Amino acid sequence: MTVEIDVQQAREQLVMINPQPFNAEAPPRALGAEITPTREHYVRSNFALPVHDGTLSVGGAVDRPLSLTLADLRALPAVEHAVTLECAGNGRLDTRPLPTGEPWGGYAVSTAVWRGARLSDVLAAAAPRPDGVEVCFTGADSGSYHLTPVLPETGDHLTFVRSLSLAHAADPASEILVAYDMNGEPLEPDHGSPFRLVVPRWFAVASVKWLRSIEVLTRPFTGEFQTGHYVYEWPDRPHEPVTYMRVRARVTDPAPASTIPAGTCTVRGKAWSGTGPVTAVEVSLAGAGEWQAAELDPPRGPYEWQSWTFTWDATPGRHSLRARATDAAGNVQPDVPPWNRLGYGNNAVEVQYVDVVGQ
Amino acid sequence: MTVEIDVQQAREQLVMINPQPFNAEAPPRALGAEITPTREHYVRSNFALPVHDGTLSVGGAVDRPLSLTLADLRALPAVEHAVTLECAGNGRLDTRPLPTGEPWGGYAVSTAVWRGARLSDVLAAAAPRPDGVEVCFTGADSGSYHLTPVLPETGDHLTFVRSLSLAHAADPASEILVAYDMNGEPLEPDHGSPFRLVVPRWFAVASVKWLRSIEVLTRPFTGEFQTGHYVYEWPDRPHEPVTYMRVRARVTDPAPASTIPAGTCTVRGKAWSGTGPVTAVEVSLAGAGEWQAAELDPPRGPYEWQSWTFTWDATPGRHSLRARATDAAGNVQPDVPPWNRLGYGNNAVEVQYVDVVGQ
Repeated sequence: MTVEIDVQQAREQLVMINPQPFNAEAPPRALGAEITPTREHYVRSNFALPVHDGTLSVGGAVDRPLSLTLADLRALPAVEHAVTLECAGNGRLDTRPLPTGEPWGGYAVSTAVWRGARLSDVLAAAAPRPDGVEVCFTGADSGSYHLTPVLPETGDHLTFVRSLSLAHAADPASEILVAYDMNGEPLEPDHGSPFRLVVPRWFAVASVKWLRSIEVLTRPFTGEFQTGHYVYEWPDRPHEPVTYMRVRARVTDPAPASTIPAGTCTVRGKAWSGTGPVTAVEVSLAGAGEWQAAELDPPRGPYEWQSWTFTWDATPGRHSLRARATDAAGNVQPDVPPWNRLGYGNNAVEVQYVDVVGQ
Repeated sequence: MTVEIDVQQAREQLVMINPQPFNAEAPPRALGAEITPTREHYVRSNFALPVHDGTLSVGGAVDRPLSLTLADLRALPAVEHAVTLECAGNGRLDTRPLPTGEPWGGYAVSTAVWRGARLSDVLAAAAPRPDGVEVCFTGADSGSYHLTPVLPETGDHLTFVRSLSLAHAADPASEILVAYDMNGEPLEPDHGSPFRLVVPRWFAVASVKWLRSIEVLTRPFTGEFQTGHYVYEWPDRPHEPVTYMRVRARVTDPAPASTIPAGTCTVRGKAWSGTGPVTAVEVSLAGAGEWQAAELDPPRGPYEWQSWTFTWDATPGRHSLRARATDAAGNVQPDVPPWNRLGYGNNAVEVQYVDVVGQ
């Protein structure tokens, strides 16, 4: 089955931040829904849209190398989950000093229903050998990339490759998908057609799109997107790889810098974390002021954001409005963005203001 | 002459941030003009609008105590200057952690033409005694104020009082005004009628409104608004009083988070400093990117902001946009807001984004 997708039309509802490679935020309204419509789901690409030959090779340190088609993947047991994906650079524009990198505001986060085969099943079929330690995932996307200095092996031509530990990748409980459907339809080009990885709880860099090959490695992978980019380069402590999404709440209503009438206002938002469900959201309505508990919906599933509301008696004047989430692991949002050179993982409490008018 | 001013009507064009005491930002368009129309000039008050009895007493350590009327002040030699006034809390909403205090965004800055008597002439007429060290200025405004703990002398009832050194106040070169006209008209109630201090180059807290008395002191003044509020409470170095405005540039066009067509775009803005004219404005159009020189207008007068422009060939996509000013004293804007407990003097480089669409 071939579905012709008009790529330009598929992008119309997004807020484009880079035409080439195409990167775009979700429209602000998209954060109001539990499930993001496909064409409102943010898009992150590192290269131009690739051509994919329709096969997925599984090899490296395995006893049974495989070459799988979309039909082969669909023939495996299917798993379906709503998964919140967030770009590791989401919120970069709010960090100071402003780091280098794509100028993401706060809308590089979305939640879609993903359906696919379990990565653990795919790996089990290939029978990894005992000396395997990592699994690396290669996308069909490649091209020139701004690197200073350029790499001796590849020059400035790179392919998007990421790895996970074999223990993580092969564990059925990880529920990592080789996904082929998004919101009940085959993947669209910008979302990794014909199939992609979806790694729950991790920043979306791990969810390799346009997946072309899976290779079991007997030593750790050290490619550019594993050890150059997507690393927290802290100024004052050892560097760390970007892994789990960090606990975060966002206000979806009222909009930042909006003017609303005085009276009862229901403040709404979303909250999520890669390190456990969110257990509390608090709201503050004055600078350095006290925090009050919001009503937090229980998780609808293990991998998706949660909605919250707060009833506010809005009085005339300007109010600073903040929301702060805490997760089951005890992580809480910091007040100051955690600065690192490439601007990843900003989960600081956001400050917005609302101007209230009338009686 | 009595002029009836409809206070509500006078406030209609402002962006109100607190109804009582009345505090309001200039509308964003106001920063585009060289001179701010009176009813677009931001307003900062600490208490309700006061009743003023029309007299100004000059006393304390002086040989000739005076009681002056508006007519007496108008009979003195008049001086007129365009003066940029900025609230010390301007930009507080952009500091992290969010400090306590009025939630000023970035529009508590305006430039009006002020006309009045020289403070140095008023003081000379009263003949300060040689043991005078400071001059304190009392406004007619007073009321309850949120203080924890309350002061033993006054409880939570305070009057707005500020001081300057006698050397500064009595120097004709300071050109401090006891102003009675603003933009060619008698002062309006929100701007300190019938007369107020205008202290060029200083954050506007020094420009006491509704001026009721001037008193020469033989020891430093230690009132709440001198040593409690309007002090930089740095976390890691000695506290300092709020004095001169800090060097700062703002972008007035394009507006923050706006969408503009691709092509030539003239970026416009204002820049000012209390420590000398602005000598350079630079613009950056990418995160952590290079700075390029903007065209900076020479000062139109010694106490007012300067306009600048930058011609930008805007290409499709999102662009982070920053402007950075340097003044004649060598001061340059920092990348990170200079955090202090009460959130004063934030002159950090602002980051805004612009989404450019089309070809």
